[in-house]
Amino acid sequence: MSKNEPKIQIIPLGGLGEIGKNMTVIQYEKEILVIDAGLMFPEEDMPGIDIVIPDITYLKENRENVKAILLTHGHEDHIGALPYVLQELNVPLFGTKLTLGLVEGKLKENKIKKNVSMNVVNPLQTVKIGNFTVDFFRVNHSIPDSLGIAIHTPVGTICHTGDFKFDQTPVDGKIADLHKLAELGSKGVLVLLSDSTNAERTGYTMSEKVVGATIEEIFGMAKGRIIVATFASNIHRIQQVVDAAFKYDRKVAIVGRSMVNTVSIAESLGYINLPENMILELDEISHLPENKIVIITTGSQGEPMSALTRMAMSEHKKLEILPGDTVLIAATPIPGNEKLVARTIDHLFKQGADVIYEKISGVHVSGHASQEELKLMINLVRPRYFIPVHGEFRHLIHHANLAKEVGIPEENIFIAENGRIIEFSKDGARFSGKVTAGKVLVDGLGVGDVGNIVLRDRKQLAQDGIMIVVVTIDKESTEVVAGPDIISRGFVYVRESEQLIEQAKDIVKQELKKCQEENITEWSSIKSEVREALGKFLFEQTRRRPMILPIIMEV
Amino acid sequence: MSKNEPKIQIIPLGGLGEIGKNMTVIQYEKEILVIDAGLMFPEEDMPGIDIVIPDITYLKENRENVKAILLTHGHEDHIGALPYVLQELNVPLFGTKLTLGLVEGKLKENKIKKNVSMNVVNPLQTVKIGNFTVDFFRVNHSIPDSLGIAIHTPVGTICHTGDFKFDQTPVDGKIADLHKLAELGSKGVLVLLSDSTNAERTGYTMSEKVVGATIEEIFGMAKGRIIVATFASNIHRIQQVVDAAFKYDRKVAIVGRSMVNTVSIAESLGYINLPENMILELDEISHLPENKIVIITTGSQGEPMSALTRMAMSEHKKLEILPGDTVLIAATPIPGNEKLVARTIDHLFKQGADVIYEKISGVHVSGHASQEELKLMINLVRPRYFIPVHGEFRHLIHHANLAKEVGIPEENIFIAENGRIIEFSKDGARFSGKVTAGKVLVDGLGVGDVGNIVLRDRKQLAQDGIMIVVVTIDKESTEVVAGPDIISRGFVYVRESEQLIEQAKDIVKQELKKCQEENITEWSSIKSEVREALGKFLFEQTRRRPMILPIIMEV
Repeated sequence: MSKNEPKIQIIPLGGLGEIGKNMTVIQYEKEILVIDAGLMFPEEDMPGIDIVIPDITYLKENRENVKAILLTHGHEDHIGALPYVLQELNVPLFGTKLTLGLVEGKLKENKIKKNVSMNVVNPLQTVKIGNFTVDFFRVNHSIPDSLGIAIHTPVGTICHTGDFKFDQTPVDGKIADLHKLAELGSKGVLVLLSDSTNAERTGYTMSEKVVGATIEEIFGMAKGRIIVATFASNIHRIQQVVDAAFKYDRKVAIVGRSMVNTVSIAESLGYINLPENMILELDEISHLPENKIVIITTGSQGEPMSALTRMAMSEHKKLEILPGDTVLIAATPIPGNEKLVARTIDHLFKQGADVIYEKISGVHVSGHASQEELKLMINLVRPRYFIPVHGEFRHLIHHANLAKEVGIPEENIFIAENGRIIEFSKDGARFSGKVTAGKVLVDGLGVGDVGNIVLRDRKQLAQDGIMIVVVTIDKESTEVVAGPDIISRGFVYVRESEQLIEQAKDIVKQELKKCQEENITEWSSIKSEVREALGKFLFEQTRRRPMILPIIMEV
Repeated sequence: MSKNEPKIQIIPLGGLGEIGKNMTVIQYEKEILVIDAGLMFPEEDMPGIDIVIPDITYLKENRENVKAILLTHGHEDHIGALPYVLQELNVPLFGTKLTLGLVEGKLKENKIKKNVSMNVVNPLQTVKIGNFTVDFFRVNHSIPDSLGIAIHTPVGTICHTGDFKFDQTPVDGKIADLHKLAELGSKGVLVLLSDSTNAERTGYTMSEKVVGATIEEIFGMAKGRIIVATFASNIHRIQQVVDAAFKYDRKVAIVGRSMVNTVSIAESLGYINLPENMILELDEISHLPENKIVIITTGSQGEPMSALTRMAMSEHKKLEILPGDTVLIAATPIPGNEKLVARTIDHLFKQGADVIYEKISGVHVSGHASQEELKLMINLVRPRYFIPVHGEFRHLIHHANLAKEVGIPEENIFIAENGRIIEFSKDGARFSGKVTAGKVLVDGLGVGDVGNIVLRDRKQLAQDGIMIVVVTIDKESTEVVAGPDIISRGFVYVRESEQLIEQAKDIVKQELKKCQEENITEWSSIKSEVREALGKFLFEQTRRRPMILPIIMEV
């Protein structure tokens, strides 16, 4: 590969080997386009962390060359890092009206005052950005107006599906731009990056309309109030609930902050059709007979602070579950949330509701393509190279196997990882070095200030708690003048273990005496002697390993 | 209901509203039989806890009346609390040879030296215990020789299914004792307690033989080594793996402590048939060609210390995954373990293995009855009363609905909870008071010494860490003579926040000064002033709420 050959580099900064924080860099010569800037929710080994965002060191180092961030759709795992990224970079955004509307809401919520250039694009629109020509095309997904992106460069065309499925009967009647995909395929695509989320699933993903039919059926049978919990961003599902309410002559109240916000944005931008006098405030609707009431709410993931969970726990200020209520959880638990959702369902049953959820009824379909659709996408686009994206490692592997099945040569498939550069030129493609990439943890106002040491400490503290040993020592004589005092938290319930604490104090006294006798005067040495002796004693007595924190005060 | 009428009481001490720690008390007059004594694995809101066992206060209060513990089968959630229960109660055990063999192993592992009366029973055997006549009958489950129990009393017969499914083609050829169930039903059963675990699942649970067929198919295609991870107690599945190995002329090594133990108990008791020279030590098998090797191992739940997980992470001392290995995870993740299992699968793929798991292939079937089998059980036994057991609340509700469907009157169905007494006499049945019941947490050597306060502290420590403030004060003058010193763990990485710590010290100094000026001398008051001021400051600065622990030393 000659040095002067024009080159395209594709650098995933997030979304590979993980579900979430999607972000991909497309670089031609020096110019950079970024696709998406998403967040990820913390794993269970990240206690106390609020969200995780991509490390954008590479973008900061090349800030003057970043021409735009192209947004495929308005889900958190595609736009959720923007409040942080936009504080670091001055860069215009491109996306559909709904996507940018949701971004605006997000920036407002995060109190970002900065003036951001927002450029609305529509499916089948072509935009020139720097030396790139960018085509947008429609795909189906669990939020309206989702886009795939084709970026034309002198080296060839890069096609990114975004999150997608092929819904042959979408709720808004707008099917994916199959003809555009076919046209791209006919003209020749250099490389396809495609959504791997459901690469483990055989067959086709069902149409969102299937959920609508189930919802209608449930509405037909319900005798009391109907409470529907779903994802706030699934506008089409909310539309179908509203349609069912209309058909069965019920009124609707919207409950839960994010649900209210999203529906209001969707309505003002024309993405949802709410018949007149259909939507009532909670106070108004509560005067209607129970069989006239529908409540649409958040909490389909069992989130502890959500409206549904608070209702289930009898902790909601305005709403309580009544016997005879039908509660519809129109969502599937995101991996990791299974137990929270199950707990919410149990509490709803205890309150006397009839609860209908995915495990026992088809009230959810995925927004992501299954294997047959993934193969269809590759067959339509006919790329020379293939990069599976958006997925944990096993999803990428399964997706790569599907690509092989439809004829992509194994050597043309790149299973990449975040930060790995894949370089394309007329001569071929290859991995070519790495850039900084990784997880930046956001905890409260801190972005990146919680690292491995803090997390390790939090995990140890959670496991067996902490024991603090304080002594005050005379500066001159090195005699102990106060203490040792011992305080523990999260270790044992102190009142039940006074004897253990007394013994621990004796151990500390012995160690301090030993140090004095052996002329060990370095505080760090004394502390580590105490820590070791006490740790050994506590483990023998309890088989637990609390964090031990000796503190020496000098007077 | 007259006072002198003979009465039966059924008191669940575990397994209702939860999956695990199954334990049921059957009491006639004063005499008590206990069915099972299981453990539960801790929920995610119980950091540091090893296992959870039932609160047996009621049994301890009536220790002289507890005649026996009847064991349905050898799973942890049915026998796992025995090492603790047997330290409190002198009581004979009844169970099949395999169940008691596993109990013996368990007691040895827990270094329980006590002489326990172990009474082997066989299916269709009748035993007289006190005034009770007890019939045991065979059911199918994911461990051999599982029993259901019928207890005959003057008030009527109580029938408990244990964990069960109906496997029409079980691996050992021993189907459930349908004729005994029919006979019980013909003679009349007062009350049926039945396993609700799979009450959400429609249809029938597949036969274990189906897994055997899939295993054979995979063995037929694998070119390199085959590594199979499954539950150590699923002897029939292990038998099927051994059979497939025999068919394809491979040798087998057993890896992982619990797998080695269980197979050795099962073999010595005749529950597994290992052809001669079939099982080799790991050192021996490693000399064979790769296509002659099968390894059966633990770790199907992604447990961090298990053999499979250590292989996946390249941390196993003797085994590493080689490209070309086929890894079969013949199990489904227990709720809560999904992410651990997924992580293990990803690492195995990264090591170059071909990984086959439930999501993409039928390498697991459940050991519990689905809806059609649950209805069949009720129809066979034809009980007058019905109590769904073994399940979270929603499972009990679904099971109750199935009972209604097959004709049990709603008023004869009792959805109970742990500790709730259900009383039966000739006149009828009713809830009748409560006994102590609940969760006893085991952490290391401590049984029950970790309660809500300790757990609350651990959760707070995990969330935002701890900040410790130490000052030494002169006893006479109440002047500060050393400090304030501030130490934090799990809060922020200190080197990056020296300024924050300095500001925090200033806040503490101000508060101490204020206390002195205002003549606040109670230490508890001073501490709470410091805690409040510092907490407010830290929340403003970081939006985090670490535990704040002020310590005052007096010299």
